[in-house]
Amino acid sequence: MSRFWSEVVHGLTPYVPGEQPKIPGLVKLNTNECPYGPSLRVLQAIRDAAGEDLRLYPDPEARALRDAVAAHHGLESAQVFVGNGSDEVLAHVFQALFRHEAPLLFPDISYSFYPVYARLYGIATRPLPLDEDFRIRVDDYLAAGPNGGIVFPNPNAPTGIALDLAEIERLLLGNPDSVVVIDEAYVDFGAHTAAPLIDRYPNLLVVRTLSKARALAGLRVGYALGYPDLIEALVRVKDSFNSYPLDRLAIAGGVAAMQDDTWFAHTRGLIIASRDKLTAGLQALGFEVLPSAANFVFARHPLHDGDVLSAALREARILVRHFSQPPRIASFLRITVGTDAQCDALLQALSAIVPSEAASALR
Amino acid sequence: MSRFWSEVVHGLTPYVPGEQPKIPGLVKLNTNECPYGPSLRVLQAIRDAAGEDLRLYPDPEARALRDAVAAHHGLESAQVFVGNGSDEVLAHVFQALFRHEAPLLFPDISYSFYPVYARLYGIATRPLPLDEDFRIRVDDYLAAGPNGGIVFPNPNAPTGIALDLAEIERLLLGNPDSVVVIDEAYVDFGAHTAAPLIDRYPNLLVVRTLSKARALAGLRVGYALGYPDLIEALVRVKDSFNSYPLDRLAIAGGVAAMQDDTWFAHTRGLIIASRDKLTAGLQALGFEVLPSAANFVFARHPLHDGDVLSAALREARILVRHFSQPPRIASFLRITVGTDAQCDALLQALSAIVPSEAASALR
Repeated sequence: MSRFWSEVVHGLTPYVPGEQPKIPGLVKLNTNECPYGPSLRVLQAIRDAAGEDLRLYPDPEARALRDAVAAHHGLESAQVFVGNGSDEVLAHVFQALFRHEAPLLFPDISYSFYPVYARLYGIATRPLPLDEDFRIRVDDYLAAGPNGGIVFPNPNAPTGIALDLAEIERLLLGNPDSVVVIDEAYVDFGAHTAAPLIDRYPNLLVVRTLSKARALAGLRVGYALGYPDLIEALVRVKDSFNSYPLDRLAIAGGVAAMQDDTWFAHTRGLIIASRDKLTAGLQALGFEVLPSAANFVFARHPLHDGDVLSAALREARILVRHFSQPPRIASFLRITVGTDAQCDALLQALSAIVPSEAASALR
Repeated sequence: MSRFWSEVVHGLTPYVPGEQPKIPGLVKLNTNECPYGPSLRVLQAIRDAAGEDLRLYPDPEARALRDAVAAHHGLESAQVFVGNGSDEVLAHVFQALFRHEAPLLFPDISYSFYPVYARLYGIATRPLPLDEDFRIRVDDYLAAGPNGGIVFPNPNAPTGIALDLAEIERLLLGNPDSVVVIDEAYVDFGAHTAAPLIDRYPNLLVVRTLSKARALAGLRVGYALGYPDLIEALVRVKDSFNSYPLDRLAIAGGVAAMQDDTWFAHTRGLIIASRDKLTAGLQALGFEVLPSAANFVFARHPLHDGDVLSAALREARILVRHFSQPPRIASFLRITVGTDAQCDALLQALSAIVPSEAASALR
């Protein structure tokens, strides 16, 4: 608190990212990272780029990366915006496309960065409750009256539940006057991308990251797909903020990542298989597990509080994520799908924590 | 232009960075990059970091880098903020510390990104003219009435002229009620840093980059030094925007760069020596060269327009920077100090362009 601060700073409640502790031997299932390293082609591309040319600025338009993203999705480069992780892309989206008089709509249980961005840019918000099964109800959005935009992840976070593409299309058709942003951070693990709808809906923006399915959380690359005039708004804001948010290594690694579909399909398959086993294991321990299309599961036990379970797992050197707000999800744990060995370690630890009658089902 | 755009987008006039063309054999003296590659310790650190851990998010606080910066300057880590190049650091400074009722003061001839940030964040500005020798006059700032902040580069860009530390201290003493930001992108080439004043002036923020003297424009690392409560404002804004603006490779390379003072001193010495030779060579061709404390010179010829010279050099495959606005500097060229060979190529090309009577002085 200081007289030098801009007024807006006093009212901020910054996003709190999951911990990145440096404890050896930790089973880290708290930030939805990929349990497998990135493609070796990515690592080679980065090493090749780690040379004298680092003295030169990167391409401010990151054309090579935009071309690679466009090629992957069968789009034009003018339909692609790239940024420093999907978090930066989303920040620019809020500034460029959501600052309107009518409130921004998003689910009450969703990515907790959305209300943070809204505060930073002075955007009115109207969170809409998920239904009793923790699902997004498109009719609620269509019935909400005027809005300045709509944003939600698909699959949603932290629930992991996917929304059908037909429902997204119904939303786009019924809400032609504001931008609908589908945040597809986790889409590769079991939901359907809205990217093919971009040519038909000028009000659709799809946001993606290389942090999850491409195993590059440490490289900070994200992108948005949409009509060229939506992309232009993002470019104008970005070029009024920081010309070069992607360094030369991120551009080189990002290009290689978008081009290696073999590695991508392989690790994605492993994670989906592990998710099924983890879900079954949790259910055997008496957990309720929401149907996940993501690389994490959202689960609660009828007899144990989320914060107690989370603390007990921490004692066992296993990190998961627990959200105490809103109250409706305080009983849940959000557990990243790790390797089979990591998932087994988690189930083993949990079986020592939950009542023996439930645990016996596992043995 | 689109009905989906936020109002602010329509009014933006984005910053235009210098070109990054991919033409082989080009002599590139247009964006003030270092003509020598970065420290080999930096390249090794990056290659070592290009491994499996890229699947994990970076440390959102970038503690290793903040510690290295603090150690270099003899400060505490709580006095250090790091960001994706000094451009991102400055963007957060404008948002966090300059959004006040009174106008922001900066020189009328200065870094052209300042008015761009001001538009993005709706900040009123009052540019103050440089004096007849293109110098910043501290008295003008002290006499300007209430302000919401003051920012200028030292040495100033694109003039290259440094301001004495005693003058900066006089400004800090006479202007205790708003933040004074000294943008030290080029300070290592001949000006005195204000960093040692930080402990005494709670209204001082010093902004630095690794793009110039550390030869890492391609890595995107910048930082700010100041009182902990100024740093806290920047952290709050950053954590409401993007938790991880520095990827793992930038953090690793940045740490190594801050620790390699031998390489730093060596290349800095080379550049300063080349600047002296370049200045003498330009003067021999009849150019007026402003006294530069930076890794570039700002020069004009009494008989040749800046845009004509810039275009003629481009024909000779030599890029320099020309600003057509404001009119007072339209006759100048901003020329990055390259290697001696690059500077010689520039002087050779210019000697073919400017009148023979002036050129004869070179031969």
